[in-house]
Amino acid sequence: MQLGLIGLGKMGGNMATRIRAAGHEVIGYDTNPEISDVKDLAELVSRLTDGPRVVWVMVPVQALEPVIKDLAGLLAPGDIIIDGGNTRWDGDAGRAEFLGSKGIKFIDCGVSGGVWGLENGYALMCGGDAEDVAVVQPIFDALKPPGEFGFVHAGSHGAGHFAKMVHNGMEYAIMQAYAEGWELLETADVVTDVPATFNSWREGTVIRSWLLDLLVRALQEDPQLTEIRGYAEDSGEGRWTVDAAIDLAVPVPAISAALFARFVSRQPDSPAMKMVAAMRNQFGGHAVQKEAAQIDEI
Amino acid sequence: MQLGLIGLGKMGGNMATRIRAAGHEVIGYDTNPEISDVKDLAELVSRLTDGPRVVWVMVPVQALEPVIKDLAGLLAPGDIIIDGGNTRWDGDAGRAEFLGSKGIKFIDCGVSGGVWGLENGYALMCGGDAEDVAVVQPIFDALKPPGEFGFVHAGSHGAGHFAKMVHNGMEYAIMQAYAEGWELLETADVVTDVPATFNSWREGTVIRSWLLDLLVRALQEDPQLTEIRGYAEDSGEGRWTVDAAIDLAVPVPAISAALFARFVSRQPDSPAMKMVAAMRNQFGGHAVQKEAAQIDEI
Amino acid sequence: MQLGLIGLGKMGGNMATRIRAAGHEVIGYDTNPEISDVKDLAELVSRLTDGPRVVWVMVPVQALEPVIKDLAGLLAPGDIIIDGGNTRWDGDAGRAEFLGSKGIKFIDCGVSGGVWGLENGYALMCGGDAEDVAVVQPIFDALKPPGEFGFVHAGSHGAGHFAKMVHNGMEYAIMQAYAEGWELLETADVVTDVPATFNSWREGTVIRSWLLDLLVRALQEDPQLTEIRGYAEDSGEGRWTVDAAIDLAVPVPAISAALFARFVSRQPDSPAMKMVAAMRNQFGGHAVQKEAAQIDEI
Amino acid sequence: MQLGLIGLGKMGGNMATRIRAAGHEVIGYDTNPEISDVKDLAELVSRLTDGPRVVWVMVPVQALEPVIKDLAGLLAPGDIIIDGGNTRWDGDAGRAEFLGSKGIKFIDCGVSGGVWGLENGYALMCGGDAEDVAVVQPIFDALKPPGEFGFVHAGSHGAGHFAKMVHNGMEYAIMQAYAEGWELLETADVVTDVPATFNSWREGTVIRSWLLDLLVRALQEDPQLTEIRGYAEDSGEGRWTVDAAIDLAVPVPAISAALFARFVSRQPDSPAMKMVAAMRNQFGGHAVQKEAAQIDEI
Repeated sequence: MQLGLIGLGKMGGNMATRIRAAGHEVIGYDTNPEISDVKDLAELVSRLTDGPRVVWVMVPVQALEPVIKDLAGLLAPGDIIIDGGNTRWDGDAGRAEFLGSKGIKFIDCGVSGGVWGLENGYALMCGGDAEDVAVVQPIFDALKPPGEFGFVHAGSHGAGHFAKMVHNGMEYAIMQAYAEGWELLETADVVTDVPATFNSWREGTVIRSWLLDLLVRALQEDPQLTEIRGYAEDSGEGRWTVDAAIDLAVPVPAISAALFARFVSRQPDSPAMKMVAAMRNQFGGHAVQKEAAQIDEI
Repeated sequence: MQLGLIGLGKMGGNMATRIRAAGHEVIGYDTNPEISDVKDLAELVSRLTDGPRVVWVMVPVQALEPVIKDLAGLLAPGDIIIDGGNTRWDGDAGRAEFLGSKGIKFIDCGVSGGVWGLENGYALMCGGDAEDVAVVQPIFDALKPPGEFGFVHAGSHGAGHFAKMVHNGMEYAIMQAYAEGWELLETADVVTDVPATFNSWREGTVIRSWLLDLLVRALQEDPQLTEIRGYAEDSGEGRWTVDAAIDLAVPVPAISAALFARFVSRQPDSPAMKMVAAMRNQFGGHAVQKEAAQIDEI
Repeated sequence: MQLGLIGLGKMGGNMATRIRAAGHEVIGYDTNPEISDVKDLAELVSRLTDGPRVVWVMVPVQALEPVIKDLAGLLAPGDIIIDGGNTRWDGDAGRAEFLGSKGIKFIDCGVSGGVWGLENGYALMCGGDAEDVAVVQPIFDALKPPGEFGFVHAGSHGAGHFAKMVHNGMEYAIMQAYAEGWELLETADVVTDVPATFNSWREGTVIRSWLLDLLVRALQEDPQLTEIRGYAEDSGEGRWTVDAAIDLAVPVPAISAALFARFVSRQPDSPAMKMVAAMRNQFGGHAVQKEAAQIDEI
Repeated sequence: MQLGLIGLGKMGGNMATRIRAAGHEVIGYDTNPEISDVKDLAELVSRLTDGPRVVWVMVPVQALEPVIKDLAGLLAPGDIIIDGGNTRWDGDAGRAEFLGSKGIKFIDCGVSGGVWGLENGYALMCGGDAEDVAVVQPIFDALKPPGEFGFVHAGSHGAGHFAKMVHNGMEYAIMQAYAEGWELLETADVVTDVPATFNSWREGTVIRSWLLDLLVRALQEDPQLTEIRGYAEDSGEGRWTVDAAIDLAVPVPAISAALFARFVSRQPDSPAMKMVAAMRNQFGGHAVQKEAAQIDEI
């Protein structure tokens, strides 16, 4: 089938390749003209000759609303827009309603798999109406891994992004779990070959996983991660997971611990710990480290 | 080769089966005479005719010291004892020294794999001297999964149990991660088929793992876990992990969150929350729930 | 001066008493006619004869918007509305703008002190324009404790409620701190008289505080809190604090721990711990506690 | 009465001053001859002429055992040794037994109050036998604040240090609570005068406390703590509190959060966050910050 695909970056570009490899036609648009198949969205839509037209949007979050709005002016009733980005789920109902007022269908689709998706397939979580999902199913089948797993129609509009959000929230805490264990092994000086130990865990253990495989890969490249700084970004979905949990009174101590650890990792100095040091100094006369001293040490 | 195996319970019994299937001779002892091959440890040792004799101990922690002591009186210099239990690592050096004073060799070996080890193989983490590990290697090879993973000689005496301890500590936090995500999905009422969503995550996602496979298996048996009470034991290794981390000033917020969640799950009522309720009542006149009222409600 | 006061409940009623005791005239309105001075808001406004009229709103959050809207139709340019409720701060700018479009001034005011405020005075945190705050200052002075503390003009619209929100977020974690310590002392069976120990801490220690005084009061009434269930509500401000922190990438592990502990305290059974128990059962054959068994035990 | 006091540092020196001001005779010993009243422990003991002799030990933890041992050789049956240091409680029973075998009495005494104790009095928590506590009571009365609070005989040997340990564990979490709130206020840019806001909270609020007074003092000296580095030591009692809690299966999420925050504050770079960054890079191709790059930025 034909697919319009907007956004040909790291994720979108690989997805186009995988979909084409499955025999479908992809017309891609990107703001970078060197990798774009068309000059603008109007040309992209005009190149989609089969009906209903299906357009997959894979753009950074700040570009989403303008693209949706532009597409709403170019598409016709019965056409389908899929948002495959890491979009906050609670805007999906509004997007579906806005597009629905023009007869355009909307599917939100969480996509997992990272740079490995091209080869292994992408896990997909969709939200929307079953009849619209059925139309796009050949594309979903091209993207997903072979076999019985990797695709779910999770519910109505927003359910796909919600499922992806929770997936990522869990991912934060799982990564934190491995990271804490690694730091403890590295620090303890009891286990003599930490990379070999992690490598041995890839079969037979309770903790074997794809993330463990990747962790071992990282240690094989740099056994003590001496080249990497302990600085971790967060893409937003961990924050939204904790927000949603708080809204529903669901305790998420491990996920929030993972999120806060990332926050701390990005602070050049911790304001809270300045205050703790200041209070210790006030009551106990405990020495504080001066910022000036810190600079001298470098 | 020949192996003496002490403790033929859930773990030991399956291990004996797997070792025998690989062509080795296992003489097993258990306090339950119905499953024991010999009447006591003396008979077990006398049945081991090849030298050096190798005895694997797979007993509950409270039985470990007496068994080690009895074996020390029965074995000869050059013989090898392996402790495969979930034993606290910091006693291993002392055990090795005690046995070493009699010329008996000691290996501590963490074993992962649970009830699935019989079929899939057990992951093994050993601590001890390389020459002793080499002697036992045919047994390790029989127990471990086929392929390149599943076995590590992690370091000197204690390193095997230390590695297993950290493995289990990470396991606690990983389980907590999935559990928090599942609770959020169940509570949110956005995703309509939660078990199908977890099932879909088994391929293509960043969070795919063996624990996820097991989680799906549990949901297939009982989709909302209505039959299971939210009560989780801890075997000790999570506690030791946090103890070790604190001793080394390693922050482990996710692992400790998982541990504390288990502690709370076993409290019929939370003393700490009684105190929070009492303070709220004192300053704000906020109503407290009376224990008596609670009983009335049942 | 004259003050209209809407909402004469636990907080509002005591505040009216304290303001009157300072020599001001309070015209109070409440939906409960037995304690209301006027039959409706229109009569309340008509009874305020001095200009500019000042109306303090002290109502539950769900009643706030209707009251603001009604007052907007009754008051005149230059009049002042104060919201003293536990209102989410990020709506204050909108309220100020809406009222400002009619020339009506708005002040948000966080109020702390609970049932003790009548006697000790209330701590007040205001947000709004300095000239409006100055008009209401005699009322603030009547409400606040004597002395130099207990009042701050914290910033523009929303700053008062923001300050109160953070105050309450810290309060959650401080209460959790005392509660954890109390549970540990109660459980440990080392200290023989726990209430006496807390009582002794009221002078000389680093942890002496008003909350500690209240905690001791609670223990004097019920030394082991046997009459109170470990069930703690949350008023919303703890949640908003964590929301705000996440939005700003500020790590708040202690405040979120306190919030999650309250969430858990209200769950009859923990879904997350059901899942942990289910996974342990899947990999280790560990026994789970059946819900049915639990019922049998009662 | 007469008191021998060993250790005349920041704490011991002030305590000597306060005890003398109450009319008692203090013979002090310190390894620093410039501040010591005697040349060695033997001279100190010989100067104590009243019976039973009472010696208060106020030394760093690593010096405790040698001092106890030396005193055991110098004192006579019926004499009393008090350990007032921040000593781990679980060694007290052994110390009491060792001294008891020589007829020497032992009291463990937690001391709170920091540099303010000289002026305000010290809060004291004792463990030991009532008859021994009674002998030392005049000294306790001299040290404690005036009034009914500030002293407790908490139980048998170890109970004093246990109470002090829990006190300090709570203190960690309370300090963390204020620190998190301060960081949020500082970061949010909503409240315009953060020091004034904290200052206003000193009366009327639920969170008023002595630590809040000290916090305000610190902000008055340095309103944004620009001179202080976010680096916080821990004296050991927070660690022991979490250890004890884990041993007793008491959940302490806020106290452990405070402890871990201090650990993190002392790490030049976080190993765990290196691993998180490495995993993100492996699955998502997310950029990592190179250690080299970090150096370039300075």
